[in-house]
Formats: sequence, C-alpha cells, structure tokens
Amino acid sequence: MSVIPEHLVPSRLAKRAEYDQKTIYSILDEALFCTVSYVADGKPFSIPTAFVRYGDKIYIHGSVGSHFIREIEKGIPVCITVTLMDALVVAKSAFHHSVNYRSVVIFATAEKIEKPEDKKDAFEWLTNKMVPGSWDYLRPVKENEISKTIALVFPLHEASAKVRTGMPVDDAEDLELPIWSGLIPLQTKRLEPTGDSFSIQIPLPAHLRRDA
Amino acid sequence: MSVIPEHLVPSRLAKRAEYDQKTIYSILDEALFCTVSYVADGKPFSIPTAFVRYGDKIYIHGSVGSHFIREIEKGIPVCITVTLMDALVVAKSAFHHSVNYRSVVIFATAEKIEKPEDKKDAFEWLTNKMVPGSWDYLRPVKENEISKTIALVFPLHEASAKVRTGMPVDDAEDLELPIWSGLIPLQTKRLEPTGDSFSIQIPLPAHLRRDA
Repeated sequence: MSVIPEHLVPSRLAKRAEYDQKTIYSILDEALFCTVSYVADGKPFSIPTAFVRYGDKIYIHGSVGSHFIREIEKGIPVCITVTLMDALVVAKSAFHHSVNYRSVVIFATAEKIEKPEDKKDAFEWLTNKMVPGSWDYLRPVKENEISKTIALVFPLHEASAKVRTGMPVDDAEDLELPIWSGLIPLQTKRLEPTGDSFSIQIPLPAHLRRDA
Repeated sequence: MSVIPEHLVPSRLAKRAEYDQKTIYSILDEALFCTVSYVADGKPFSIPTAFVRYGDKIYIHGSVGSHFIREIEKGIPVCITVTLMDALVVAKSAFHHSVNYRSVVIFATAEKIEKPEDKKDAFEWLTNKMVPGSWDYLRPVKENEISKTIALVFPLHEASAKVRTGMPVDDAEDLELPIWSGLIPLQTKRLEPTGDSFSIQIPLPAHLRRDA
C-alpha cells in the first residue's frame, strides 16, 4: 500500500498524492468499474471491468472465453486504475482550470481463484457491491455458472491514491478580475429502478428501494 | 475508425460491438476523461486525463514536467479507453447481472503539436468541452502558458466502440421466478456551481447557469 513507483508520480501532481489505506479503500469501494491495462506483444491494451475490493485485495471476473481474462490470468503485470470525478474546477484563466478527482493506481499480477467456494465468495462480494443486499435475494448461483466464470484476485501492496480537492488556484494578479471562478460539482447517482416485462407483478424488493 | 484488432474483441462481448463513427464520437464527446495506457520497461502504466475530440482526432495536454506526457510524446503505442456507465442490469440470477455501458478503445501513437497557435486551438477546444462556452469569457491565455504546456494529438483510425443496452437476459427457466429484474439507471450530472471567495461579487455568467 505504501510504495508508489517514482516514475509514476507525475511531478506536477506529486503534491496531490495521498497514500493512506482508508483513502484508497474508499475510492475503490465507491467506483463501479476499473480499467485494467496489460502488455501483449509489447503493446498496451486496456479494458474496463467491474471489480470489488474485499479486505486487502480486489477481485474481477470474466468468462472463460474472454481473451482479456485468459491473457491476464497468466499472471502478467497489470496496471489497474480507478477514477472518480468530483468537480470541474473553473478558474479565471483556462490555464488554471482543473478537475477535483480521486484516483487509485494499482500495480499487481493476477492470481486465479481455483476453489469453487472461493470463487463463489468473490461473486457474492461483487454482486453485493454492484447491487447492495442483492445476493441472498437472487436465484442461487449454480455450479456450472461458477465453472464457466474465471475469478482473478490482485493484492493491493502496490496501490496509491491521488486526490485533488478544493477551489481553483489562480495567479495572484488575476484574483481581482471580474471573472467568476469556483467549482461545478459532479454527481453520479442511481435513479429509480425500471422493471422488465418479467417483473410487472413483482414488488420492488426493499434493497432496491431508493428510500431504503 | 474501422479496424478493431481481432484479439481485442472479447469473444463473449463481440455481439455488443459497434463500429460506426457517430457512436464513437458521441461517447468521446460525453466522457470527461479517458484512461491512457502505455508500456515502459515492458510494464503497463495507465493514467486518467482530460481530453477533447475535434474532428477525427483527440487531444490531451499536460505539463512539460509530467513524466507521463514526456513518455508518450515520444510516439510510443498507447491504448486509450473511455467508459460511460448507463445502468446496472439486475437479473434474476447473479450470473446474468451486467452493466449497460458505452465504451471506446483507441490504439494510436501521439503526435506533439508544435505551433503555438495550434496548441492554443487545442486548449480552446478542451476548455470549451469541460466548461461549454467558457473560453471567450476567461482571462486570455498567455504565451508562456502555452509554452509550459504540451499538447498531444491522436488519430482515431483505430477506434472502436462497444455498447450494451437493454434489459437483463435471464435463463428461460428463470423467467417465471418471483424475483425482480430490470435496470437501475445511472446518471452523472453537473450540480449548481459554487463560487470561490474571489467571486462573491461576480454574477454567475450565462454559460454556467444550469437553466441556460
């Protein structure tokens, strides 16, 4: 959790670096997807995917037929990034415009989870992250669904967070200009659930109610 | 815009692939950041950054002191991904849970923009993308601000989009189960702007008003 490789700290952003576990975990727990990058034939590839943090590891899953999963299950180095955008930072000059964000970068190699009961645990954590409280409500998972899905786990030893908060930082000589500066906060929210045609007679369960 | 490398199409997702320029452009224009991946010392690195599409290219910028920018300005291969999350897809089984998303993957190499007037154009497009209508309102950009900033441009020849829309697809034998299934739409929006202490006397300009 501690060591961020020197060449990954953009020098301009270094003052925004934060390293504490609590910050890293909270960003990972809020984000709905991560971007996994890897090298194949010397070239970079990256792909967005759902994930869940549990303890000091993160978990992703994918079909046994997925090229991406088959590539990274070999245990090659990956770089995983997670980004949350909190606000647009509107300065009095274009040059000082910025973004308030929280991001995490993880360097790791995948370990494949082999035991069906361990895979099932990972799927439960992932499902309950995306839709809190849903796992026990759903039709129970089947053995062949577990065998058709690959689960990969990554340690968080080499994880770091970068965070920008606060107002724009304008040049001193610009501060008196009659130009508005401040923040445009950004918010991502879950809207009212919409049932499909097979759910018309089915009451929305408590864990999906927005006032719950 | 046409060719997606075969090994990048996850076979399970191939049916979700879309290739048309209009789809690709609309995703790029809506997204506030992209994730740029590259290879250094044989290892993958990735970093989120603001960007703008203009015509058939995308533009990013960064400080001359940024390790990331100095690395990719060399013209090494990069993979750029953009992801928009539209809804959580809630099935009757965990196995069929999914996400409605729109994503773009671009393979390209950077070209550095050298002419100050071309760099200024890129900064104008980027500023107006993040805060529409703002460029002409702001304190004009200075020559030394342009020289302190690197602008990189990437062609979109090798760009592809993947999109999932619609309701969950449950197993036929699960359709009659009394388990709710449907979508939880996700929405990212800009909230009411908050001025800083240097803007107390300054009216919010028309381009920042949410009812504008």
